[in-house]
Amino acid sequence: MPELRRDPILGRWIIISTERGKRPTDFIVETNSVKGGFCPLCPGNENTTPPEVLSYGREAGPANSPGWSLRVVPNKYPALVIEGELDKEGDGIYDKMNGIGAHEVIVESPNHEDAFSSQSPDKLRQIFWAFRDRIIDLSRDSRFRYVMVFKNYGRAAGASLEHSHSQLVALPILPRMIVSELEGSLSYYRYKERCIFCDVIRQELKQQVRMVCENEHFISIAPFAPRSPFEMWIVPRRHSSSFVALGEESFHDLAMIFSESMRRLNACIPNVPYNFVLHTAPLRSQPLDHFHWHFEIMPKLTSIAGFEWGSGFYINPIPPEDAARFLREVQI
Amino acid sequence: MPELRRDPILGRWIIISTERGKRPTDFIVETNSVKGGFCPLCPGNENTTPPEVLSYGREAGPANSPGWSLRVVPNKYPALVIEGELDKEGDGIYDKMNGIGAHEVIVESPNHEDAFSSQSPDKLRQIFWAFRDRIIDLSRDSRFRYVMVFKNYGRAAGASLEHSHSQLVALPILPRMIVSELEGSLSYYRYKERCIFCDVIRQELKQQVRMVCENEHFISIAPFAPRSPFEMWIVPRRHSSSFVALGEESFHDLAMIFSESMRRLNACIPNVPYNFVLHTAPLRSQPLDHFHWHFEIMPKLTSIAGFEWGSGFYINPIPPEDAARFLREVQI
Repeated sequence: MPELRRDPILGRWIIISTERGKRPTDFIVETNSVKGGFCPLCPGNENTTPPEVLSYGREAGPANSPGWSLRVVPNKYPALVIEGELDKEGDGIYDKMNGIGAHEVIVESPNHEDAFSSQSPDKLRQIFWAFRDRIIDLSRDSRFRYVMVFKNYGRAAGASLEHSHSQLVALPILPRMIVSELEGSLSYYRYKERCIFCDVIRQELKQQVRMVCENEHFISIAPFAPRSPFEMWIVPRRHSSSFVALGEESFHDLAMIFSESMRRLNACIPNVPYNFVLHTAPLRSQPLDHFHWHFEIMPKLTSIAGFEWGSGFYINPIPPEDAARFLREVQI
Repeated sequence: MPELRRDPILGRWIIISTERGKRPTDFIVETNSVKGGFCPLCPGNENTTPPEVLSYGREAGPANSPGWSLRVVPNKYPALVIEGELDKEGDGIYDKMNGIGAHEVIVESPNHEDAFSSQSPDKLRQIFWAFRDRIIDLSRDSRFRYVMVFKNYGRAAGASLEHSHSQLVALPILPRMIVSELEGSLSYYRYKERCIFCDVIRQELKQQVRMVCENEHFISIAPFAPRSPFEMWIVPRRHSSSFVALGEESFHDLAMIFSESMRRLNACIPNVPYNFVLHTAPLRSQPLDHFHWHFEIMPKLTSIAGFEWGSGFYINPIPPEDAARFLREVQI
């Protein structure tokens, strides 16, 4: 059973995930692992993954057979496990709990070669809809407080499988990053009685220097203080704290702006490795006036070295105003 | 001039460092850069670095000539620049300041091939003494609030030069990580009236499950909630908030425990890439009862992917109790 441990000084949680490597020498190869050849996510290999929890597009045939256009399966090497009671315990000054959670893989397409950044808007719409379906389903489990949805693309960004996929992790605690965003935005709200993200949108639309693209329901911006070159945030124009509250009619616009942003990024830096992460309100929370859901897209172009580890801040060699201009002006 | 920018939601600071790459295509090669051939840090090439700010061991000859055993020079491609007034300004909801600071390279040895982990204790003692000298010198500049000392070893850990070196950055703001440690340890102190690091030392000495090695003045442990496999902390047994307050007589023990810890790590995972970072009190602060200086050594074995970016917590595949046992039992 994995274990969640809390750093007593910082309050930072760590997952000790014993499903993976065990001996020191196991780590020597890990950073160089390339998975080629057999693909467990391709159609026909459904029996090599744990049984699916969701699929779209299969018109006939049983679960876990080919014919699907999108499929969600539990991760075969999960960071957290779904079975068990949530036990918390102390050990002197230290706190830990057992690693209860869900870790799922969203297989975005049956086609091994498909890249997220060149998918059609309809396909992206389907992927985002799957995120929504899974979050709603997992929110029924009262042990979980948050569902983190993310994608790793490219080895430098942590992907270990080529086949186009994203992931989600349902957690029994709120991740530190979300706690910090909730606290930071609440502190602003108490002072101004306005959502800081709404103020960001207003200022970006007015200044027009960090805008990447926009449509009726969303804007895509290079954030003012980006951690990495060409970082982008996709933010809904209308205030809402929760992704799952997004109306079905807005999913088309979300797919369109994501598609355009990714195509612009890819045109600037072909085949760039990246991560994206959905930032949304905790499960089952009331609508929050101070928090605003959004996606953060982080190209993986600079390395995280001692300075970043030690300081918690980042050196970015390109101003977001320049990055946004490149992204706006590139031919797509 | 570089610029410091504050994320308005998280309060996270970013350095926009315009000395480096400029166009999107500059980033394609950056992650693969290997610097071979000519070495600006080798003896005889002193004129290819900015003029030295400190050197040890040169018995004759002018500054910036060969004959040194250790040399500190400003970074040729600094993240921050030393000249100028510290200006802070707002831009609507955003805050920024100009990127005043110092960024120096500690050239640890004239021998290009020397590795920190196999240096003699006498050499390590000299390197730590150089850290002390530079922090004391930079603390006289009232624009600076913190000096971050760190080392990147190996390309995976962000090193761009082979020649054995460490770095320091003097900053006009307190890094977020240090702020979090100061706040976390103060909150514990208010509750318990004890230093949490002193309590960590007591519990580790008592439990003997995460100890790596120890001597009269220091312990080396695998921390309870490590971010990476084989993470180690080197902590002085006697309470002190500031590295520069360490008495000269303790530098031998610091060198000895660092040497042993690094040799053990290297014996477990040969030539492992790593970062280490000195965590110490802000410049010119009074002695703090709640904070305890220490080094954190982070082997670079797992990748930082979407999950870690999005959550701010880490998946570690090996319990620190196992890592400590491997480190204790390995032949060195």
